[in-house]
Amino acid sequence: MAVTSMSVGEIAELLEGRVEGDPSTEITSIEPIQSAQAGAIAFISNRKYIRQLATTAAGAVLVSDEVAALPRPEHVSLVILDDPYMGFAKLLTHWTHVERVVSGVSEQAFVAPDATLGADVNVMPFAYVGPGAVVGDRSDLHPGSYVGAGAKVGSDTTLGPNSVVHHGCEVGSRCHIYAGAVIGSDGFGFAPDLRTGLHYKIPQIGKAVIEDDVEIGANVTIDRAAMGETRVSQGTKIDNLVQMGHGSSLGRGCFVVSQAGISGTTQVGHGVTIAGQAGIAGHVKIGDGAAIGAKAGVHADVPPGGRMLGSPAMPGEVAKRSLAVIRKLPEMRRRLRDLDQRLKALESAD
Amino acid sequence: MAVTSMSVGEIAELLEGRVEGDPSTEITSIEPIQSAQAGAIAFISNRKYIRQLATTAAGAVLVSDEVAALPRPEHVSLVILDDPYMGFAKLLTHWTHVERVVSGVSEQAFVAPDATLGADVNVMPFAYVGPGAVVGDRSDLHPGSYVGAGAKVGSDTTLGPNSVVHHGCEVGSRCHIYAGAVIGSDGFGFAPDLRTGLHYKIPQIGKAVIEDDVEIGANVTIDRAAMGETRVSQGTKIDNLVQMGHGSSLGRGCFVVSQAGISGTTQVGHGVTIAGQAGIAGHVKIGDGAAIGAKAGVHADVPPGGRMLGSPAMPGEVAKRSLAVIRKLPEMRRRLRDLDQRLKALESAD
Amino acid sequence: MAVTSMSVGEIAELLEGRVEGDPSTEITSIEPIQSAQAGAIAFISNRKYIRQLATTAAGAVLVSDEVAALPRPEHVSLVILDDPYMGFAKLLTHWTHVERVVSGVSEQAFVAPDATLGADVNVMPFAYVGPGAVVGDRSDLHPGSYVGAGAKVGSDTTLGPNSVVHHGCEVGSRCHIYAGAVIGSDGFGFAPDLRTGLHYKIPQIGKAVIEDDVEIGANVTIDRAAMGETRVSQGTKIDNLVQMGHGSSLGRGCFVVSQAGISGTTQVGHGVTIAGQAGIAGHVKIGDGAAIGAKAGVHADVPPGGRMLGSPAMPGEVAKRSLAVIRKLPEMRRRLRDLDQRLKALESAD
Repeated sequence: MAVTSMSVGEIAELLEGRVEGDPSTEITSIEPIQSAQAGAIAFISNRKYIRQLATTAAGAVLVSDEVAALPRPEHVSLVILDDPYMGFAKLLTHWTHVERVVSGVSEQAFVAPDATLGADVNVMPFAYVGPGAVVGDRSDLHPGSYVGAGAKVGSDTTLGPNSVVHHGCEVGSRCHIYAGAVIGSDGFGFAPDLRTGLHYKIPQIGKAVIEDDVEIGANVTIDRAAMGETRVSQGTKIDNLVQMGHGSSLGRGCFVVSQAGISGTTQVGHGVTIAGQAGIAGHVKIGDGAAIGAKAGVHADVPPGGRMLGSPAMPGEVAKRSLAVIRKLPEMRRRLRDLDQRLKALESAD
Repeated sequence: MAVTSMSVGEIAELLEGRVEGDPSTEITSIEPIQSAQAGAIAFISNRKYIRQLATTAAGAVLVSDEVAALPRPEHVSLVILDDPYMGFAKLLTHWTHVERVVSGVSEQAFVAPDATLGADVNVMPFAYVGPGAVVGDRSDLHPGSYVGAGAKVGSDTTLGPNSVVHHGCEVGSRCHIYAGAVIGSDGFGFAPDLRTGLHYKIPQIGKAVIEDDVEIGANVTIDRAAMGETRVSQGTKIDNLVQMGHGSSLGRGCFVVSQAGISGTTQVGHGVTIAGQAGIAGHVKIGDGAAIGAKAGVHADVPPGGRMLGSPAMPGEVAKRSLAVIRKLPEMRRRLRDLDQRLKALESAD
Repeated sequence: MAVTSMSVGEIAELLEGRVEGDPSTEITSIEPIQSAQAGAIAFISNRKYIRQLATTAAGAVLVSDEVAALPRPEHVSLVILDDPYMGFAKLLTHWTHVERVVSGVSEQAFVAPDATLGADVNVMPFAYVGPGAVVGDRSDLHPGSYVGAGAKVGSDTTLGPNSVVHHGCEVGSRCHIYAGAVIGSDGFGFAPDLRTGLHYKIPQIGKAVIEDDVEIGANVTIDRAAMGETRVSQGTKIDNLVQMGHGSSLGRGCFVVSQAGISGTTQVGHGVTIAGQAGIAGHVKIGDGAAIGAKAGVHADVPPGGRMLGSPAMPGEVAKRSLAVIRKLPEMRRRLRDLDQRLKALESAD
């Protein structure tokens, strides 16, 4: 990643860090520690890269106090930070920042006469803003995005191409709804009609609410509640192709990896990680800080901080030991037969 | 859910039920039995809520004959029904009914000159109706929806925002195709080219047919057949992000939960439930009334009424017993070693 | 599949095969061997259909040398090919070929003034081509498709309805991106902010590159890389609803079945098959020619040619034996108890 030039001192100031070495060293790119050359800044956040400090050609490295105590080549300046990985993220954000362009409302878009747009909103070609919808300042509605009647979108929020926010739903500020995501589709609620054997639709009259600072990945589906609301709380990040059923909720700062599914009415606490392709059954509570493993199938409540693996899900340590034995099963079965034979021999000898 | 006022007697008439108590009691909302206040109607369909009848503040409750026989507070009127849950669904449908508005064909839509639109069809901005397509009376084509060349859509059907019905496919009447769903994409059919090691595409010249009264969830994908057809039969409901391969079929009144996958050519009978994230391999037959559990992986035919769990899938009762033992595996292994030791001791003693 | 008439001799010429029987026999349709009538051509590629040759009513059959050596009815002509299934595919392609119609750029589309379109490109209503984008000759941009700023699309490529190619990404020639697929959405990359407990977004400044002759199914999501690129190599075919994380790659001629997920940075070799609903963890290498089974969960490198099944994944033969024993677990547990009892009896007798 090439950038315009910035001195090590300027970088330290930006990241609120401390310099060891030459603050006037000019940095023009950010690179992995293994391949960084003079003029590049790298970072060490993972212990397994510590030894690279001694041999790197980088002009500067973002490091922790611990790493700063180690010997380093003379040509390397250090920027010492509490959290070098976060420093890398912030430096990259600074360097890659692109000024937003205000293009306004395209003539090829549709905005209902009674919709309300904040200041400097972009409504790009083929975007649709329905009757009574409200969009906050500086939000971007990309081509083909849809804001249903009476829906509310906050400020500085991006609706990606062909994303959908259905009628009456709410999306907060500084959110990014990626391409093709669908917020507020009807929940999957039916009453079995005992006379016909078919399914009678239960009106889904609730809504979906996405709080501030949320990211929702491409082609995600988040249903509206039957009554009340489906909720994604502040700062939660959702990867592609995730499903959230009607009336479910995610707490603050959760992290939901792609293709996971959260069934209707399930309540997930704050700071929970749900790994890829995991599934959580309905009417379940997941405690704060829990971690659900990839492909896990969770059918019961998980306590705060719980780690669950496998399907059906087990506590992580039980699962690791148990699942590892599965490949020993044929051998165990042979041993059972062998023991039985030997026991029979002894029994008949007796 | 607040409503305009309706008396208990009027509700009983609507639902074809019988009143016990005061038919003139005015009802203005529908609420859960636990939180319902005077003026609200609640329902009891699940046995675990029966005891709530004695203490509810609701003005009226929808109940079965069985529950009507229990003691109740004097302020509570009953509406007695064969199926109180269905009564709730119908009452809610009645109360939340919104009159459809006919807006006609938007100037920002595209309708091919030789397409045929029935009476009172809405074609909203950025919806596309291709050459030779036919759309029945009172259907709604939401923004960004697509009806391919020669495709047929029935009456009173809704195509959600950015949903796609490909060329030559058919969607029945009273269907709802939710946002981003794709009907009739090419099946995944290739011939391995032994000379190049690559895959040679087999033309997918069949179609996908969706019968009447079907719901298809957001971002679902249903492929067209290679030859012949992929079919979803009358009254079947499909949740979000489900996949149906080419030439597969679902019978009447099925219920397919989100993220399930049905491989090409697999035939699913009537009234089958397929739970979330389940997968069914190709060339398999699933009998009428079968139930496939969440995350199950089905590789062989399932008889009518069969219940399958696990991956690879086992009959439900076998699976419940077997999967529960997995967490005992490390202990079983220790016991095997212990038995072996003790047996060796006896053998050497002999 | 009815076609205009073609003689057996003409078919043999097209497929570079050899006729046995009457080359003047006229063929007007292609049908399965079981149901083919006079005037139809069928094919035999699977050994289990060999016996059908003796009884088919077909006018001609595509066969291998091996099958050609068997007795056949006098009315059946043979076209002898190295690979009869490939012959079928090519014949069907020939018969179903529809001449492409050039409609040009719709007035209801959006093409940025500085975008570059090749010869005979179709940009259909509501398709969007962003600033600086480049589209090659004879490509079709279907309604609602999106080509972001600076993105490149090759020649003879189809972008299906509502498909998305984000800014700066590349799609090769002769590709088909199906409806609703999203190429180049931001990767799911965040730094945990230890002070706030929330997730700080890492800018995703890489791209996604789709090489030539690739198919990408409906509603697939392929993220752009954090830095560098996510890559799908030449001739690879991806089914619906598949996820590829940032910085992952697929080699040439891979085959990825629906709902599979490939995590960020994972490198998949050439000619790999990944079956439906399989998941591959991040930072893993899958060797050339490997096969990952349906629903498998792969957490470690797989050698070239490896076959993996189950979750956690095991080598195929181990998995087949081991998973089959799971349903014997309750019985094994009973036998363990029984052995223990019998052993105790012997021990106390001693």
